[in-house]
Amino acid sequence: MYVDMPASELPAYRSSQVDPDDFDEFWAATLETSRAAASAVRIEPVESGLTTIDVFDVTFSGWNGQPVKAWLRMPKGATGPLPAIVQFVGYGGGRGHRLEDLFYASSGFAHFQMDTRGQGSGWSLGDTPDPDGTGPQTPGVMTRGIDSRETYYYRRLFTDAVRAVETVRELDSVDASRISVFGISQGGGIALAVAGLVPGLAAVAPCVPFLCDFPRATVITDGYPYKEIGDYLSIHRDRVEPVAGVLAYFDGVNFAKRASAPALFSTSLMDSTCPPSTVHAAYNVYGGERSMSLWQFNGHEGGGIVDVERALEFFRGIVGNA
Amino acid sequence: MYVDMPASELPAYRSSQVDPDDFDEFWAATLETSRAAASAVRIEPVESGLTTIDVFDVTFSGWNGQPVKAWLRMPKGATGPLPAIVQFVGYGGGRGHRLEDLFYASSGFAHFQMDTRGQGSGWSLGDTPDPDGTGPQTPGVMTRGIDSRETYYYRRLFTDAVRAVETVRELDSVDASRISVFGISQGGGIALAVAGLVPGLAAVAPCVPFLCDFPRATVITDGYPYKEIGDYLSIHRDRVEPVAGVLAYFDGVNFAKRASAPALFSTSLMDSTCPPSTVHAAYNVYGGERSMSLWQFNGHEGGGIVDVERALEFFRGIVGNA
Amino acid sequence: MYVDMPASELPAYRSSQVDPDDFDEFWAATLETSRAAASAVRIEPVESGLTTIDVFDVTFSGWNGQPVKAWLRMPKGATGPLPAIVQFVGYGGGRGHRLEDLFYASSGFAHFQMDTRGQGSGWSLGDTPDPDGTGPQTPGVMTRGIDSRETYYYRRLFTDAVRAVETVRELDSVDASRISVFGISQGGGIALAVAGLVPGLAAVAPCVPFLCDFPRATVITDGYPYKEIGDYLSIHRDRVEPVAGVLAYFDGVNFAKRASAPALFSTSLMDSTCPPSTVHAAYNVYGGERSMSLWQFNGHEGGGIVDVERALEFFRGIVGNA
Amino acid sequence: MYVDMPASELPAYRSSQVDPDDFDEFWAATLETSRAAASAVRIEPVESGLTTIDVFDVTFSGWNGQPVKAWLRMPKGATGPLPAIVQFVGYGGGRGHRLEDLFYASSGFAHFQMDTRGQGSGWSLGDTPDPDGTGPQTPGVMTRGIDSRETYYYRRLFTDAVRAVETVRELDSVDASRISVFGISQGGGIALAVAGLVPGLAAVAPCVPFLCDFPRATVITDGYPYKEIGDYLSIHRDRVEPVAGVLAYFDGVNFAKRASAPALFSTSLMDSTCPPSTVHAAYNVYGGERSMSLWQFNGHEGGGIVDVERALEFFRGIVGNA
Amino acid sequence: MYVDMPASELPAYRSSQVDPDDFDEFWAATLETSRAAASAVRIEPVESGLTTIDVFDVTFSGWNGQPVKAWLRMPKGATGPLPAIVQFVGYGGGRGHRLEDLFYASSGFAHFQMDTRGQGSGWSLGDTPDPDGTGPQTPGVMTRGIDSRETYYYRRLFTDAVRAVETVRELDSVDASRISVFGISQGGGIALAVAGLVPGLAAVAPCVPFLCDFPRATVITDGYPYKEIGDYLSIHRDRVEPVAGVLAYFDGVNFAKRASAPALFSTSLMDSTCPPSTVHAAYNVYGGERSMSLWQFNGHEGGGIVDVERALEFFRGIVGNA
Amino acid sequence: MYVDMPASELPAYRSSQVDPDDFDEFWAATLETSRAAASAVRIEPVESGLTTIDVFDVTFSGWNGQPVKAWLRMPKGATGPLPAIVQFVGYGGGRGHRLEDLFYASSGFAHFQMDTRGQGSGWSLGDTPDPDGTGPQTPGVMTRGIDSRETYYYRRLFTDAVRAVETVRELDSVDASRISVFGISQGGGIALAVAGLVPGLAAVAPCVPFLCDFPRATVITDGYPYKEIGDYLSIHRDRVEPVAGVLAYFDGVNFAKRASAPALFSTSLMDSTCPPSTVHAAYNVYGGERSMSLWQFNGHEGGGIVDVERALEFFRGIVGNA
Repeated sequence: MYVDMPASELPAYRSSQVDPDDFDEFWAATLETSRAAASAVRIEPVESGLTTIDVFDVTFSGWNGQPVKAWLRMPKGATGPLPAIVQFVGYGGGRGHRLEDLFYASSGFAHFQMDTRGQGSGWSLGDTPDPDGTGPQTPGVMTRGIDSRETYYYRRLFTDAVRAVETVRELDSVDASRISVFGISQGGGIALAVAGLVPGLAAVAPCVPFLCDFPRATVITDGYPYKEIGDYLSIHRDRVEPVAGVLAYFDGVNFAKRASAPALFSTSLMDSTCPPSTVHAAYNVYGGERSMSLWQFNGHEGGGIVDVERALEFFRGIVGNA
Repeated sequence: MYVDMPASELPAYRSSQVDPDDFDEFWAATLETSRAAASAVRIEPVESGLTTIDVFDVTFSGWNGQPVKAWLRMPKGATGPLPAIVQFVGYGGGRGHRLEDLFYASSGFAHFQMDTRGQGSGWSLGDTPDPDGTGPQTPGVMTRGIDSRETYYYRRLFTDAVRAVETVRELDSVDASRISVFGISQGGGIALAVAGLVPGLAAVAPCVPFLCDFPRATVITDGYPYKEIGDYLSIHRDRVEPVAGVLAYFDGVNFAKRASAPALFSTSLMDSTCPPSTVHAAYNVYGGERSMSLWQFNGHEGGGIVDVERALEFFRGIVGNA
Repeated sequence: MYVDMPASELPAYRSSQVDPDDFDEFWAATLETSRAAASAVRIEPVESGLTTIDVFDVTFSGWNGQPVKAWLRMPKGATGPLPAIVQFVGYGGGRGHRLEDLFYASSGFAHFQMDTRGQGSGWSLGDTPDPDGTGPQTPGVMTRGIDSRETYYYRRLFTDAVRAVETVRELDSVDASRISVFGISQGGGIALAVAGLVPGLAAVAPCVPFLCDFPRATVITDGYPYKEIGDYLSIHRDRVEPVAGVLAYFDGVNFAKRASAPALFSTSLMDSTCPPSTVHAAYNVYGGERSMSLWQFNGHEGGGIVDVERALEFFRGIVGNA
Repeated sequence: MYVDMPASELPAYRSSQVDPDDFDEFWAATLETSRAAASAVRIEPVESGLTTIDVFDVTFSGWNGQPVKAWLRMPKGATGPLPAIVQFVGYGGGRGHRLEDLFYASSGFAHFQMDTRGQGSGWSLGDTPDPDGTGPQTPGVMTRGIDSRETYYYRRLFTDAVRAVETVRELDSVDASRISVFGISQGGGIALAVAGLVPGLAAVAPCVPFLCDFPRATVITDGYPYKEIGDYLSIHRDRVEPVAGVLAYFDGVNFAKRASAPALFSTSLMDSTCPPSTVHAAYNVYGGERSMSLWQFNGHEGGGIVDVERALEFFRGIVGNA
Repeated sequence: MYVDMPASELPAYRSSQVDPDDFDEFWAATLETSRAAASAVRIEPVESGLTTIDVFDVTFSGWNGQPVKAWLRMPKGATGPLPAIVQFVGYGGGRGHRLEDLFYASSGFAHFQMDTRGQGSGWSLGDTPDPDGTGPQTPGVMTRGIDSRETYYYRRLFTDAVRAVETVRELDSVDASRISVFGISQGGGIALAVAGLVPGLAAVAPCVPFLCDFPRATVITDGYPYKEIGDYLSIHRDRVEPVAGVLAYFDGVNFAKRASAPALFSTSLMDSTCPPSTVHAAYNVYGGERSMSLWQFNGHEGGGIVDVERALEFFRGIVGNA
Repeated sequence: MYVDMPASELPAYRSSQVDPDDFDEFWAATLETSRAAASAVRIEPVESGLTTIDVFDVTFSGWNGQPVKAWLRMPKGATGPLPAIVQFVGYGGGRGHRLEDLFYASSGFAHFQMDTRGQGSGWSLGDTPDPDGTGPQTPGVMTRGIDSRETYYYRRLFTDAVRAVETVRELDSVDASRISVFGISQGGGIALAVAGLVPGLAAVAPCVPFLCDFPRATVITDGYPYKEIGDYLSIHRDRVEPVAGVLAYFDGVNFAKRASAPALFSTSLMDSTCPPSTVHAAYNVYGGERSMSLWQFNGHEGGGIVDVERALEFFRGIVGNA
């Protein structure tokens, strides 16, 4: 069933999220510090048994120079420079198994799939620790370090993601002018953050993105993971305002305003995990060219493989065939 | 939590399923009729956008000559003859989207993924109708046509599967002596049936197979789809014995006895959909060489991608590299 | 709790369902074909042990001449001609056990209870097969054959229902001018279809009717069986429009417009299976005299036995005492 | 799924319930007091609209002379004396609507359906109050007055039931030597109590009876209403022994031992409300001739209408045709 | 998630509850009768093992003079007269264990915790019977005696509560001019009733109060215990109007209008048990000074210990330090 | 219902948990390092408004010298030395609100309630961070740092607990020879760890303790938090053995063997969170005098306030009145 406002009201909806004055300074300083702490990327070929794809185990410098894992998959023997797709992963998952997610490389792209620090134990494997601790929190990562914008978990994860793109840009096998970013759910939210923080991307495809419009998302659904925040605030009753203040620095709405690359979004009218109004909150203020796949009878699975297929066509329309 | 007998008792467990006297005659006649009704296979290339894999849309003659769809995926430009893997699909699903399931072709095999008649609307798409009707039934296909062995749904589906293997054997691009079958859940149950009905297979890998040991499976779990049968019998109270008589012709236990190809099974100690004793009921009487992946903390997902990886290694150990 | 629009808005609500140009031609042709294929009804007395009621096992010609079962119950030794009530059954059920549903015959009416093809395994027994197959579908009958209006399951079932009334009209024991139709839930939806397709009915009583206002019913509730359609469209994403086109030929809203017999509806403000607005969608455009029992604190059970009692009083007010 | 011990162990199972020394004195005194307080029965014809059955509204003297309602249904115009069936009702229900439960009267019997004091608001209507109060209790009637055998709710209800049979025996229209008792679930438990307390019954049919083998029933299932007792003891931790002492006076196991009329029981292997071992606890010690319908794939619905049909055949085998 | 109207609409919301003409006469007569039947309070010291608090077991005369239990807790050796807090308890609970709820006495107040007749078996212990019986009802106390205002359960319980305050006023150890009442959920609803019936209270603190605005509460949520009323009306379909008539005499909205003591309310925007609009229905018409704690991310737990802390500060602001 | 082996088998049950050779060395080294890093405790009086109890906000040095919060509650104006009770808290909670948990101080004891690092956001507040990070994990703390015994979360938390007791021993207001430890669920598991690691405790009372007998606990229940481990291993399939190796250093069974102080345990036969066999696994090998409260009809709430009352009596029986 429909779980949000009528579809006809979605295009005009605007989030009540604020845009902190020092938003750009905060992120500029955050990224600068991490860039300064970076060391050289390590890329090691993996014996996968695949005959059409080469798989590489990548370790790059993420937040504060901390090592972050990724898979790089390339068409067999490709030397490039190829157009690249950097992919981020959904909540609870990691970069997965080396034999999963063969689609983009099978389509001729360099495919860089970033691991998710401290997650990677829910529905897909991860190998990257989150070496920073936490104050009192509810289970999950939504309230890890939520005491301050400095310690919040997503400061580290979004920085990893920016650093992933910057790492890919330096690869000889990649055409730095043809890098797109892609992600589903949390991966879509990360893709939006990257779109707002990294200039010069070719294209962005956030599918059923999470992490958008916290003021509404936290009160319109009982679905997890948004509800982790509500659980926390139901106990930390005096933290409603401060937590809102922290989240403003991490809201996809604010990243969307700052983005300029062409974007293809998707959302579903029956998605109670990432309700369609919260996705439109980001989409409606997106700073670049934009289009939307609106799924009428789907929930959080959105368009599934069709979202992926459309993303590929969208990327090819911009960067050409791989 | 563990949902079945202690793991230590699994190796000695034997099903109470009977082996009907005319089991072999029933299936021989069934298959002969369908072979006689067959017409030529149609294979049409599909524009997929993939650069490392060729995808073909296949229509072959299944039960009673009825048209059944499949995808054939081959490494780009391969002419063969290649070793082949014929895959069957889990309950509710169909052959899926042309861009899904790239693994086996990316590993150098001819990959033939059969559609599932009348299903294909649950978690993956299908395109094959089941043009035969039904008597009174519960929702799903477990009791479709269960009035008699002649009209039971799985008579048609298992015949489709045998015909799929026979179709693949005739392809120029395939090495007929190196055909393996693979499937998960319902797909694993179909693979077992094929293993018992088709001589000369190279190898068989049924992962967390469904459709085994009906006498125990229907009373030891409340999980669907086995419970469809219990739902039916809770209303058709006078059909307990006749339905048991029909199911004996479709039980993986009886197919397993007749199989001879080397087999790799998997099962999970916490699987309440296909409990581990029901899988061992087939495994323990399997007629060929056999090995088992026993997952301790998994449910019906079993080994997931690791089951697939192991299956590939198992196939390669027998048929060599593709 | 209330599950739909405020009660005060129900009288003015109008469905967005369209009325296909060739709706009447489609149904006229459908019925004509089936009438042409009909053979003689068979009526056999049943040993029931009842001392006040005679029970007969009926086999009549339904869709395309296919045999459909029914129970005919008459007051003991009645020779008629009696007024008759033709009853249709709820989703998943069949004509039931010969000893069930004694009410209408105990009230002096000829009571004809039609079986439901291919259902009859959920909460009551059935004996009628649905010999036509299906394309890919979700479990249940809501998407069986939904590829086209020609193959859709309800084309066959509604035709059975029309043929049931036509069969009863020919019985010597029945007064053909005093035939009413009755049904609850799916049975109510069938009764509405019959009311729109069969002229000359004495009265119609659809209780908490199903199968009305598909455009709203499929998006306003997560209750089954309406959600079967949503499940199907969540996988068959490209079939949203075609499926809507098919359903327009089977919507109670369109049948209600064409009906002329006096009607007594019922609906409940807390019914999430057949929400009250969807019932009003048909009621508000009903072509004959109409009245409504609106239950304030009930769900899909509606008025229960009180709905039945009121229906009997309503029928008696029109056809007189039996 | 099976919810209790293996079916093969049921025949040998014996309850650990004790048989209090003064069980018979307790009940003799209880009944004597209530008989002494009785006043004349009132029987008023009801305008039902039925043409084959006469319905009467009965008010008789139950526990302590308190008025209890019932429906008496007779074949139209019958003057008797007829064989009679006294029916008791399941948990939460009452005597129901005057137009429900026409089966036994349609079969030629006098049918006396007793109301259930203070219930009658769950799934069927009741009209009889329970004018005695309660100590602290959990919702429902299982712990109402459980402080002592004197105040326990079922002392009053079982006395009502004995008095119902005694009332029916005095009716001119009934043959006092041909009275049977029938009930499903709680109604079956009441029937067992009556069988143990009233001599001279023709036959007894307790279907899926409740209120048997409290020592096991309260710990082997989480199903309500048995769990009401567990809920109470989870708070009243020091009342485990006293409550067990009270319940011994109301356990069907103890009534079954004292019964002598022929009995037909039913139970289901998948019934988690009244598990099959608890039914066998009473059945295995039943004092008269006994037989059992054992349903393999049913839950608490047991044999449904087939249980009723068998009960009628069983009664007719003893008392002859009505 | 938010479960009710937008927070911005709460201040202007008014209930549709009516105010019966003889409301005041009904309650005046009720209380007068019970006062006339009262006997002397009994207060017995309890050996608790506590070294800072004295605990007394109290038995006072409630409705119709019936004995009602309470705990009286006082700072060790206090002779008073102390300011007092009379507390009422939530649904299903009783006065609890003698060692629970030490907060108010540890703060220097005389703390009088009234038991709840016939409840006290859910989450906390009770010792007080409800010696009056019931007509047909659903499980719980919401429909106990709902046939008439005279027999309704809450007539007795509210009278107990008034009598509790009157009893405390007579204690030597208490300053009769400094008595406040407090309660959570059902306890808050009772506190509101007392505020409307007893003049001269120092202060009132109803936290997340239950029993307010029945016309809306019974249709806006499926949460229990409000739904007990809906369950009853779904069977007793002809009692919708009479039950509404009875409930008008027990609605917190009507008590709130008559109250004059300063009040501190609380409610939660995510409370589906006692939705915030129903609390505002009472709050918005409250007759005395009033303030509200509005919790944004809480459910029925409201402010928890913070509600208690604020209540104490509120009481101290009026009656001074204990 | 009963959720584990029959009660009669509990006394003889022994866990299969191993006892690592270097268990004692591991813990000795761990504690020594943390003691060496300790700085002076800070104790600050809190304005609570309570008149019978003094509340102090404590900050002491836990694992690796990291600051950990606690509440110290003392009878008003007590100068001591008093006997003390150190309490640990259940999963998800923290030290709570300063106004909660007044029982032990009201009984004359010094009550020291330790906060729980990184939790304290579920059902009670906490203020202590867990500044160490984590590898990939499932939500919650059960798999935080489970890669190695060095990094496992409970290494830090158990060390905090030992340090809490050592901190209390140094307080002037406390009699160091009369310190007991108490906890419920996770708090009981921590109490057991402390009992095994700290000599010279007066008494130990673990109520329904968690963290015992991991080999059985992780496979016998689907209840959280034990299932967090199963969730992790269902993805990290190759970590079954290593994780078991890590957990052996943190199992209450191994701590129980090493304990010597008298102990009072509790467990419930219907507890599916901490099943009774897992509690008996520790109890049956406990190294000191021991007794058990076995609750027959309770779940994880165990004896509730009665467990607390018994613990106090037990402590008083050993250390005398406070």
